[in-house]
Amino acid sequence: MTNPIPQDRYSRGLARLTEVDGAAGEAVIAAMADIAPDLGKAIIEFAFGEIYTRPGLSLRDRELATIAALTALGTATPQLKVHLHGGLNVGLTREEIVETILQMAVYAGFPAALNGMFAAKEVFAAREVAV
Amino acid sequence: MTNPIPQDRYSRGLARLTEVDGAAGEAVIAAMADIAPDLGKAIIEFAFGEIYTRPGLSLRDRELATIAALTALGTATPQLKVHLHGGLNVGLTREEIVETILQMAVYAGFPAALNGMFAAKEVFAAREVAV
Amino acid sequence: MTNPIPQDRYSRGLARLTEVDGAAGEAVIAAMADIAPDLGKAIIEFAFGEIYTRPGLSLRDRELATIAALTALGTATPQLKVHLHGGLNVGLTREEIVETILQMAVYAGFPAALNGMFAAKEVFAAREVAV
Amino acid sequence: MTNPIPQDRYSRGLARLTEVDGAAGEAVIAAMADIAPDLGKAIIEFAFGEIYTRPGLSLRDRELATIAALTALGTATPQLKVHLHGGLNVGLTREEIVETILQMAVYAGFPAALNGMFAAKEVFAAREVAV
Amino acid sequence: MTNPIPQDRYSRGLARLTEVDGAAGEAVIAAMADIAPDLGKAIIEFAFGEIYTRPGLSLRDRELATIAALTALGTATPQLKVHLHGGLNVGLTREEIVETILQMAVYAGFPAALNGMFAAKEVFAAREVAV
Amino acid sequence: MTNPIPQDRYSRGLARLTEVDGAAGEAVIAAMADIAPDLGKAIIEFAFGEIYTRPGLSLRDRELATIAALTALGTATPQLKVHLHGGLNVGLTREEIVETILQMAVYAGFPAALNGMFAAKEVFAAREVAV
Repeated sequence: MTNPIPQDRYSRGLARLTEVDGAAGEAVIAAMADIAPDLGKAIIEFAFGEIYTRPGLSLRDRELATIAALTALGTATPQLKVHLHGGLNVGLTREEIVETILQMAVYAGFPAALNGMFAAKEVFAAREVAV
Repeated sequence: MTNPIPQDRYSRGLARLTEVDGAAGEAVIAAMADIAPDLGKAIIEFAFGEIYTRPGLSLRDRELATIAALTALGTATPQLKVHLHGGLNVGLTREEIVETILQMAVYAGFPAALNGMFAAKEVFAAREVAV
Repeated sequence: MTNPIPQDRYSRGLARLTEVDGAAGEAVIAAMADIAPDLGKAIIEFAFGEIYTRPGLSLRDRELATIAALTALGTATPQLKVHLHGGLNVGLTREEIVETILQMAVYAGFPAALNGMFAAKEVFAAREVAV
Repeated sequence: MTNPIPQDRYSRGLARLTEVDGAAGEAVIAAMADIAPDLGKAIIEFAFGEIYTRPGLSLRDRELATIAALTALGTATPQLKVHLHGGLNVGLTREEIVETILQMAVYAGFPAALNGMFAAKEVFAAREVAV
Repeated sequence: MTNPIPQDRYSRGLARLTEVDGAAGEAVIAAMADIAPDLGKAIIEFAFGEIYTRPGLSLRDRELATIAALTALGTATPQLKVHLHGGLNVGLTREEIVETILQMAVYAGFPAALNGMFAAKEVFAAREVAV
Repeated sequence: MTNPIPQDRYSRGLARLTEVDGAAGEAVIAAMADIAPDLGKAIIEFAFGEIYTRPGLSLRDRELATIAALTALGTATPQLKVHLHGGLNVGLTREEIVETILQMAVYAGFPAALNGMFAAKEVFAAREVAV
């Protein structure tokens, strides 16, 4: 019931965002700076500062859930790619990610799984190049 | 590339369905018997016999992914309830389920998270009564 | 490029609505009368008077398309039921309807197909009773 | 860039929630108390304390936007009803609400508009009774 | 209950389309000319001639509702951009648009809000260049 | 209740995939080979080997249903294009396809119909060039 003071939420959220999404996450925040800086701030403070720092579910599990949901929804390819990087950054293996996306064929249909897999293919390739 | 013969897919899938979803899963298959038995058969053979028996992702992780996706989609409350039972049956804790649903507020909005939480509340209560 | 005068759109649409959806369609229009009569009028004039009266696709095919779409979307169960009646009214067989809904498992996932099949089961049963 | 301290977010959000949604909003928070109190807290602090208290868009406009979005999504009927009450509470007229829902036929189809209108019909009737 | 004759619906709708969406709206109609001219005609006659000319909700409010809905749906980026122009054309301020999109984070999740904001950023920049 | 042995499902599915989708379908399977070959295999064995080979609904009707559903969903443009080719390959006329997409304006809104029509326009043009 006790809350940290806001400065803590922001810096804790920014640390978590950087830990999970790396440069890709920071780029999203930066892209919002000239049009809606408070959307970037809410992503840092609420999504990463409040939700992704909660105990009770590991970061790895959180990314698994996010990859599943964004693959199923099929409306957020850029954010799915950020979290495919994020999942790999916090310990998901490529095999686990591929299995998660494949399973979405059961719950959201084969087009959703295919489009998720194309996003994964692109992210995996980008990380090969980056090495 | 080698496949088991179909009888194997069916019995393996049925075993997996029973392991994960228990009576609730079998009730869904039974409800299809007089209108579309092959939909029930496909759920057993494909969803459970082919996907849920794959290595590379634990059953517990598969249920986590499914709960995340169905909460985010918001169009499949009966199936979400089946998999809330399923998740608890294969090792997810209530806390992990609550965290997964809560996190969907970030990716699919607060109404999706609220409706998922109401489903969880109903399932958790049903299991108290059943004890 | 020439249009019928509006009275024609309305009466032509009403005739088509009655032909396709029977009493269920008229009940929807009636239910709008005290809150948004113009929504009912638009359904009659635009949906049924302009679209469902077009040449180039049979009524039977139009209902097939609608049943597929509403099953896949998963957000319009009451309207799906109206069009399950409608499809049977204009010549689709139960087998064709069941096949259409089953196929949606491929494009929108098994929960969408299951929920569509439950709606079909209810509509088929209602027509047995009505005989 | 300066934030109020968290206690302020909570009490400011609770005041705003009560102002907009009245008892219905508080009932949602209460329903979360035994399963996910932090979801209720996030709705109060983030949705109402941070977003609904922002300058730049009137409360009436915020409810208009929410009614439009929830009608179009079609996956959140309980929350749509809460915000139909909310819209009326902060100055939207019934006519404006009916027009907003009707317009969603253009962007999300007639079933979405019909289901939104059925929700409005129920809410309007409940307020007659309550008087 | 009295309707204008169809020619009126068309010219009234075209005038409204031009007033709201300007060249972008007309370009959409033109793009349909060789494949489905009647889709363009229905947009003019029904969407703009019948809905957008109704009393009871201002044009500015209609665009606010449309921007909210299309941001939340996340499946219609080209149409969202047309209506971001439209909203600015009929009196919404950039701040009001940004607030509307930001609020969609609450109802459809942060990815929907982010993608809506990227569309707004592109539209705002295009209008700077055009000046 | 008797099933063909798995090799049969695969070769029967591949033949059906080739018949319906031609080179575009095979390209999708090939694209999965290095990341998730079993997704390609499931599309061949389950979607095409089990569903598209069922009696009770013609191939032409199956493509009509798929085009309707993917247009309405609005989240699977690449797959819609494959099935626009597929529909033409198995006997749908351009007029029937245009009518099906147009009708989706009624059930999923004008943006869905517009985006489906843009996909059809692109596919029709590609087939002109290919002749």
